[in-house]
Amino acid sequence: MKPKLDVCLTPQLLDLHKVAGKTVVIIDIFRASTTICTALGNGAKAIIPVKDPEYCKQYRSNGVLIAGEKNGLKLEGFDLGNSPYEYLQADLSGKVIALTTTNGTKSIEMTKNYAAGIYVGCFLNLTALSDRLTEEQNDVLLLCAGWRNHFNLEDTLFAGALVNKIRGDFDTSFDSTLGAEHLYLSAKGDLMDALKKASHYKRLKKFGAERDIHYCLRTDVNDFVPRLVKDKIVL
Amino acid sequence: MKPKLDVCLTPQLLDLHKVAGKTVVIIDIFRASTTICTALGNGAKAIIPVKDPEYCKQYRSNGVLIAGEKNGLKLEGFDLGNSPYEYLQADLSGKVIALTTTNGTKSIEMTKNYAAGIYVGCFLNLTALSDRLTEEQNDVLLLCAGWRNHFNLEDTLFAGALVNKIRGDFDTSFDSTLGAEHLYLSAKGDLMDALKKASHYKRLKKFGAERDIHYCLRTDVNDFVPRLVKDKIVL
Repeated sequence: MKPKLDVCLTPQLLDLHKVAGKTVVIIDIFRASTTICTALGNGAKAIIPVKDPEYCKQYRSNGVLIAGEKNGLKLEGFDLGNSPYEYLQADLSGKVIALTTTNGTKSIEMTKNYAAGIYVGCFLNLTALSDRLTEEQNDVLLLCAGWRNHFNLEDTLFAGALVNKIRGDFDTSFDSTLGAEHLYLSAKGDLMDALKKASHYKRLKKFGAERDIHYCLRTDVNDFVPRLVKDKIVL
Repeated sequence: MKPKLDVCLTPQLLDLHKVAGKTVVIIDIFRASTTICTALGNGAKAIIPVKDPEYCKQYRSNGVLIAGEKNGLKLEGFDLGNSPYEYLQADLSGKVIALTTTNGTKSIEMTKNYAAGIYVGCFLNLTALSDRLTEEQNDVLLLCAGWRNHFNLEDTLFAGALVNKIRGDFDTSFDSTLGAEHLYLSAKGDLMDALKKASHYKRLKKFGAERDIHYCLRTDVNDFVPRLVKDKIVL
């Protein structure tokens, strides 16, 4: 019998899925997953995902960079915003970064006490992640972080891309898995075009972050899989 | 400003949407929505949607036909099952039918006290429903009944077909609306093929109800829009 591969379209549907013992992939394409991969790829030692900016500030006294933004601007007094480009350009060697994210952190908090392992997934590490999941042969739950519990298109498209790559090695049972793959297959020729009407695309564009969107859709830039170890995301 | 058009992918996401004052379309393609349209099209006077088979039985003493099935078989002592073909063949003139449905009835119960109106939608009445919604110019919520709170493909495909027909007259804001339309556009050339791996298709096929699936995907067989009036669905 093959291991199971399921897609949970938003955290609000999580109670319909079994989490215990599964490998959970946290998907927050615009932009937390992408930013985390980029920071670790550029030498950062660990990312601490934090939900609240105020709580995030407390980390700074411990010699940690703090990162977060609101409406496209870096938060006042913070070291970094949430654009992957900042993390490409900064010197992050050996740094620990406390990063505020709303949807991604929530998804981690909901699953970390039950999952066998938690990985961070995005287009940047699609193939590395696919290979890892196929090698491990454990049951997998792809958890789309969504937007305030709503379904969002970019996370679902990535889940579909992952399903499309690995489903031969897994059993799937829910229509969410099938629907995500259908969406990806219909959009893969031009992901950018498929996302042009998406709510998050429009928000980011308004903040002048269109360049980020292009970066977030780049495939296989990184050959590693970030994973959660005791509240820190590391390589 | 145009009225709003949103898609709620499963009842479990309903609290993310405003229902008050909206026109809600209940979508339960396999097979409640389709069966209800078929029964009313074949002369039935009203359908009473009931969640529980035991509760349904109580209606019979009032001179009402009772309808329901389990695993593809008509429930013992019931007058009708849940295959639209039965409703095409039976003499239903002037009859009231209490019909047990799990997902569809739940969706009605969750919205009936808040919605401005509740319609039943399926491929059979796609154009009639589209015309009605466009004429009324009220805010619309398409509520996919799903399967035990899970996303399902057939309800989402229908929601997408409806969005595709009417969205020029409405404003849409959520990615669920966009995703449903994308799914429909990618599948519309062969809906049957797109559904072949869907969980509900497989369940129905196992029960020998493949013919029903074909019927449920027929478009514009009926030119009316069933609506809820005091717990009864009527024309």
